Amino acid sequence: MTPELQAQYEGGLKAALDAGYTVLEAGGSSLDAVEAAVLVMEDFPLFNAGKGAVFNNVGGHEMDAAIMFGLGLEAGAACGVSHIKNPVKLARAIMEHSGHVILCGAGAEQFAKRQNIAFEDDAYFYTEQRYKQWQEALKEDRVQLDHSDKKFGTVGAVALDKEGNLAAATSTGGMTNKKFGRVGDSPVPGAGTYANNNTCAVSCTGHGELFLRCVVAYDISCLMEYKGLSLKDACDIVVYDKLVKIGGEGGLIAIDKLGNIEMPFNSDGMYRACRSSEGRMEVKIYKTPSP
Amino acid sequence: MTPELQAQYEGGLKAALDAGYTVLEAGGSSLDAVEAAVLVMEDFPLFNAGKGAVFNNVGGHEMDAAIMFGLGLEAGAACGVSHIKNPVKLARAIMEHSGHVILCGAGAEQFAKRQNIAFEDDAYFYTEQRYKQWQEALKEDRVQLDHSDKKFGTVGAVALDKEGNLAAATSTGGMTNKKFGRVGDSPVPGAGTYANNNTCAVSCTGHGELFLRCVVAYDISCLMEYKGLSLKDACDIVVYDKLVKIGGEGGLIAIDKLGNIEMPFNSDGMYRACRSSEGRMEVKIYKTPSP
Repeated sequence: MTPELQAQYEGGLKAALDAGYTVLEAGGSSLDAVEAAVLVMEDFPLFNAGKGAVFNNVGGHEMDAAIMFGLGLEAGAACGVSHIKNPVKLARAIMEHSGHVILCGAGAEQFAKRQNIAFEDDAYFYTEQRYKQWQEALKEDRVQLDHSDKKFGTVGAVALDKEGNLAAATSTGGMTNKKFGRVGDSPVPGAGTYANNNTCAVSCTGHGELFLRCVVAYDISCLMEYKGLSLKDACDIVVYDKLVKIGGEGGLIAIDKLGNIEMPFNSDGMYRACRSSEGRMEVKIYKTPSP
Repeated sequence: MTPELQAQYEGGLKAALDAGYTVLEAGGSSLDAVEAAVLVMEDFPLFNAGKGAVFNNVGGHEMDAAIMFGLGLEAGAACGVSHIKNPVKLARAIMEHSGHVILCGAGAEQFAKRQNIAFEDDAYFYTEQRYKQWQEALKEDRVQLDHSDKKFGTVGAVALDKEGNLAAATSTGGMTNKKFGRVGDSPVPGAGTYANNNTCAVSCTGHGELFLRCVVAYDISCLMEYKGLSLKDACDIVVYDKLVKIGGEGGLIAIDKLGNIEMPFNSDGMYRACRSSEGRMEVKIYKTPSP
């Protein structure tokens, strides 16, 4: 990581944070805020989502995204979609207009066309960095998490608005060189993405298979609702204990109905940022301080 | 429902029950037992899974299945797969041999070929009953749950073996006339299928979108683990209160680590059966007694 690259990442995080916060400051909904923030990160080439999505085994880009609104537990998710410029927009259209929660692959793309969701050709999704990562993975015939340096590139946002509504959104390109239509936790309500006005909103990044098996996002909500834990205690148990025991590297961002914010991770770093109406503002990559 | 048809359904349930129980009686694992039971139901033409899977909007069959083992929270799921004779076998192969949890669509079918999973052509999946249901749905341009008489046809099994290991499996053809690659709760660990040796094993059937948003199967596990509820109390809250409030019609089968069995549903009926080493044995369709 060079200082220049670090500054680029921080710039991308700050732009996403500003996009989401601007919505909230103007009195907008948490749903609009998380969509706005994720959209900026999908358009930013360094994150593993939208434009910067990793290559799959055949040189394409299969993306997953989800969005969830805590007021009525509304949720929408797109799995394994190609050529969609902003999968988070498709997830929201699925939530609001499909009558379903999860749509997959070519079928989801057909639905996207009917909803006038923007498509892009393969050239749009080409980034030199991702191409090199794919070539290296191809050479060794391995499927790998999106960052060899253990900072995952899946993007997500959580927000609480002035009406007290929580929302979460997540978007990812998944694993480099992935085969067989693999889908991780990101688009799965309860696993990589969850929002419930009674408890919290959560968006995860990390080794998706383990996050799926641990139903991570909903686990945090249940620890709060059924065990009476604080957001921090719930996050600590899930990220530093349960996930570590099962080998689940990664982290998450979470906000509760009181506006408490947690951004725990058990990996070397996690690109993250937060801003609250009470003046807290952070843009970070590494551990400061250690958990 | 004619007496003849009812007898056929009961025969199918009994055959599945016997297949699973035979495995357990011989000292086999709960994982083998749930796979054996679901396999019988996938081959049985009246249930909405495998051979009897409903038609999608273009006259095909897109099936979903999952399996989960409570010992280590291992899970495997196939979403939107066509021409797979027994999707539960594919789900298990995904769990044991893919390094992933969820595989979708054509990619999952490629993986199935490598694992020598049996394929069948369209003719195998043709049943007159499902074809008629599809034609009716097509005429009115609606997507419908698999039974207009409100007894859902998704199949599932849960089991506890003598080692104390819990397992769950679910398999479905989804909704008649479905479009856009719709996937419900069945193949999603935590939503339609879940197993955890600390708590319970659960398999759901019903309106998948609502079950997904409520993360139903894991919710029951969390109510037991974090709130100390019995399996019965956890099931009652989720099926008769939480799901009803959100409009989520359906039910589930569940067994806990002590061998307690619950089969609650808020629909008119639910095809169900159970057998325990202590002598309980039931094969039922309607409410007896009312919840």
